Amino acid sequence: MDVIQAIKERRSINFFETGQELPDEQLRELVEISNLAPSSFNLQPWKLIVVRNPESKRILRRCAFNQRKIEEAAAVFIIVADPGGVEENLERVLDNWEELGYMKPEARQGYVDMIQNLYGQPNSLKRKFFAIKNASLFAMNLMIAAKGFGLDTHPMDGFDEDSIKREFDIPPDKVIPMIIAVGHLKKGTTLLPRAFRRRFEEFVRLGSY
Amino acid sequence: MDVIQAIKERRSINFFETGQELPDEQLRELVEISNLAPSSFNLQPWKLIVVRNPESKRILRRCAFNQRKIEEAAAVFIIVADPGGVEENLERVLDNWEELGYMKPEARQGYVDMIQNLYGQPNSLKRKFFAIKNASLFAMNLMIAAKGFGLDTHPMDGFDEDSIKREFDIPPDKVIPMIIAVGHLKKGTTLLPRAFRRRFEEFVRLGSY
Repeated sequence: MDVIQAIKERRSINFFETGQELPDEQLRELVEISNLAPSSFNLQPWKLIVVRNPESKRILRRCAFNQRKIEEAAAVFIIVADPGGVEENLERVLDNWEELGYMKPEARQGYVDMIQNLYGQPNSLKRKFFAIKNASLFAMNLMIAAKGFGLDTHPMDGFDEDSIKREFDIPPDKVIPMIIAVGHLKKGTTLLPRAFRRRFEEFVRLGSY
Repeated sequence: MDVIQAIKERRSINFFETGQELPDEQLRELVEISNLAPSSFNLQPWKLIVVRNPESKRILRRCAFNQRKIEEAAAVFIIVADPGGVEENLERVLDNWEELGYMKPEARQGYVDMIQNLYGQPNSLKRKFFAIKNASLFAMNLMIAAKGFGLDTHPMDGFDEDSIKREFDIPPDKVIPMIIAVGHLKKGTTLLPRAFRRRFEEFVRLGSY
């Protein structure tokens, strides 16, 4: 599928064909491609929890205002934004950059200092912003990639975050920006017209820049 | 270009061909397609400032640790996450949903209450999280759409946010999650190999879910 067509045809669907599965092999391919999303200094501060079995979906549905599509979709992805991504991946990023020729060894400390300055301490607000924005880039990549696999999606942030953390054993310092239902459009469904988008002039400022 | 290919070939490039322009017509098409990104309750809490003229790029470069690509790219997009997106768009979203058949009139107040509960007050932390995640979905859509136009990008968050706000007249309550350079890869450039990504097992939890 053409990339522009994929973006134009991506819709957040409300009706999934039930009884469908997202097999391991397709899951892996979809996730690995989505994981090519860019991130701040390549720190990749996201994790993914894949919910596929009926009992887990029932639990997740209860955490998310009883939204039916959670049980009907083939899988639901819990997108986890990880403020600890800096500590987890920093050394590896810099080693990798050195190895590939992105960075000279003498520049290493400068990057460490810059990253600490930009993204603050592990429990700071800056660090949460860092995690949320990057995890959201990953999430959007995933929704577009899904179209390439003939899959549809629906991102949701109507849920009780603490309940999801408790039920799915997610540490309190993480943030869950959204969960995403993934599956096949229910056969015979006609989508309603796309909801409005603002006109270019309403949100774009050109000015004299 | 195929959507999976576009995601695989999207790279954050460091060397843009100088002297290129992003004409109005292409800019508009690119932005309108990117703007089809999903958002929480379709509230679209993002704005975009497009920086194309040499003097404005010089100013922006100074706000962003002197990164050369800001001046070399055809354009740089300042992605603005707008916590005020709820107040700006809520009534319009609900009117539109009612008109298109997404929502019955009697459900309207329930949505208003839910949105206020989920995204808090205008100056709250919740509201900033809401704005940042949604603006980042838009940003990723934009970077992928760019590939469909033969354009490359580089998202950056190494900048002094307050300086950008001051120079580009952005109100203090907004958040700038990233700026994105857009343009053409410098002729004759060979990209270094892609930096590492974590293996599937390192960031995906399947467990018994």
